[in-house]
Amino acid sequence: MSMEAGENRFEPFGHVVIVGTGLLGASLGLALKARGLTGVVTGVGRSGSASLDVAVKRGAIDHAMTDLASAATGAHVRKSVDLVVLCTPIRQFPEALRILAPALQAGTLVTDVGSTKGEVLRWARELLPPHVEFVGSHPMAGSEKSGPEAARADLYANAVCLMCAAGDGRKGFARIQQMWEQLGMRTIELSPDVHDRWVATVSHLPHAVAFALVNAAGKHPEMLEAAAGGFLDTTRVASSDLSMWTDIFMTNREAVLAAVDDFAGELDRLRSAIDAGDEKAIRAILAHGKQVRDELAARRKTAGRESPGTGRAGA
Amino acid sequence: MSMEAGENRFEPFGHVVIVGTGLLGASLGLALKARGLTGVVTGVGRSGSASLDVAVKRGAIDHAMTDLASAATGAHVRKSVDLVVLCTPIRQFPEALRILAPALQAGTLVTDVGSTKGEVLRWARELLPPHVEFVGSHPMAGSEKSGPEAARADLYANAVCLMCAAGDGRKGFARIQQMWEQLGMRTIELSPDVHDRWVATVSHLPHAVAFALVNAAGKHPEMLEAAAGGFLDTTRVASSDLSMWTDIFMTNREAVLAAVDDFAGELDRLRSAIDAGDEKAIRAILAHGKQVRDELAARRKTAGRESPGTGRAGA
Repeated sequence: MSMEAGENRFEPFGHVVIVGTGLLGASLGLALKARGLTGVVTGVGRSGSASLDVAVKRGAIDHAMTDLASAATGAHVRKSVDLVVLCTPIRQFPEALRILAPALQAGTLVTDVGSTKGEVLRWARELLPPHVEFVGSHPMAGSEKSGPEAARADLYANAVCLMCAAGDGRKGFARIQQMWEQLGMRTIELSPDVHDRWVATVSHLPHAVAFALVNAAGKHPEMLEAAAGGFLDTTRVASSDLSMWTDIFMTNREAVLAAVDDFAGELDRLRSAIDAGDEKAIRAILAHGKQVRDELAARRKTAGRESPGTGRAGA
Repeated sequence: MSMEAGENRFEPFGHVVIVGTGLLGASLGLALKARGLTGVVTGVGRSGSASLDVAVKRGAIDHAMTDLASAATGAHVRKSVDLVVLCTPIRQFPEALRILAPALQAGTLVTDVGSTKGEVLRWARELLPPHVEFVGSHPMAGSEKSGPEAARADLYANAVCLMCAAGDGRKGFARIQQMWEQLGMRTIELSPDVHDRWVATVSHLPHAVAFALVNAAGKHPEMLEAAAGGFLDTTRVASSDLSMWTDIFMTNREAVLAAVDDFAGELDRLRSAIDAGDEKAIRAILAHGKQVRDELAARRKTAGRESPGTGRAGA
């Protein structure tokens, strides 16, 4: 899905507005500028928030604004806005879209980096005027760290970006797809429903499990003294941003519940085998899991998208 | 619990026999030699197994033997054996102890690196003669990789070693404790029952969860295309050694079942909150989990035992 060299040369965006300058927003600013994919970057954040200052200091944005409606017109730099990227927690999107709707000029593209897509695309259809094309983007990149302090120009490199078209208009889609690919991402187009089921399984479920694991172990603080690499890696994502993850669980409920139930069934299968002392069954369950995980690691290594992990676990 | 400098200077073991030269055994050989904690290391493995050859080539052991009874006498180097360390999967311990029982001289210490302790100490009491002191050791170090190829002299450094005394004899306990501390470990003494409950929660449970996660996601191979750092870290330990983990689940059944049930209750609490769309409850569950995980990471950073993780997750 990546472009042939020299084909469809990417035309830089003159002016990009990034709404929300936390980890994802500030990293996007750094990345766009590092690759020369844009002229001006305006960051929009809450007034009095330190994250705008940090984003400016780190060079992730050229201009810091607290008024989204003004920012969206581009009047502050006399440069019309080509692209708006929503990088706040998802449930702030409706408010942002309501403010953007009357302010955006025809031709401005809007995308996001949110982790669910069904609700987001419904909001975009409802709230944006027909002359503004919305494209759903979900870069599968992030960190358990948050804020512009943790931003990195290479956050998006070598990761996958899942994309959902909002309507029939494909011009904006191709342009935004090109942008992610220029940042080193592999793009995959999915329908919003399929997207939400995929990420429920490979992202939202592991997060739910990590939160439940630390909550279970947290009842026995003394035991945590013995926690080694296995526990630390398995629970790392429980340190993720609270608002972001509350929003994700609130906006992808059905798919998350189905994934949790599927997982609970698998865990119960292992539990029953242990309870019965059924060595053959335990071994078969472990063998299948190990095969899936080993194959995934091997594919990632080949694709240069390996997770380094701690290299320490077991115990 | 670490020694004061200059106090209780460690007297190197003249001859150490390591039974099983996989990741843990070969790493122990490398570590003991790197720190000058022993004269001779004899490795014992199955005849025809490649792992003995690799362990010799890597300098983890000086002598490779396939006959445990002969190795235990030290006759092959005319050097009596000070310490035998069992490093095979746990359920091979009874056979090894039966062979060692008549072969060991008075004064030889026996320890292990197994992940459960209740059964292991029962076996040691049953099978070893009174003149041989057994001490249970469980270094919380390892990797999802296995075999002597993955061995590292620093595998044990900066990790915790849980220890269980088998009887009243404390001379051997102090000496083996000193050895682990010389290898850079922090030792914690626990009763076998308490040990087994601790590790069920902080180690065996996360492994059970990782196996169930990959088995659940493995039903949808197409979705694994979108797996990012969060999924990879959360499931890393599902690549662990099959025999080792079958043995662990078989020898710590009761404590593992209790830990799994406790976890399932926590996951169900989150599931119910999501099902009800109860934002406040979701946020409270996540906030508590994040606090536990953040505090653990902070303590580890201070103690120099941080898990580097991938630094990439979320999404």
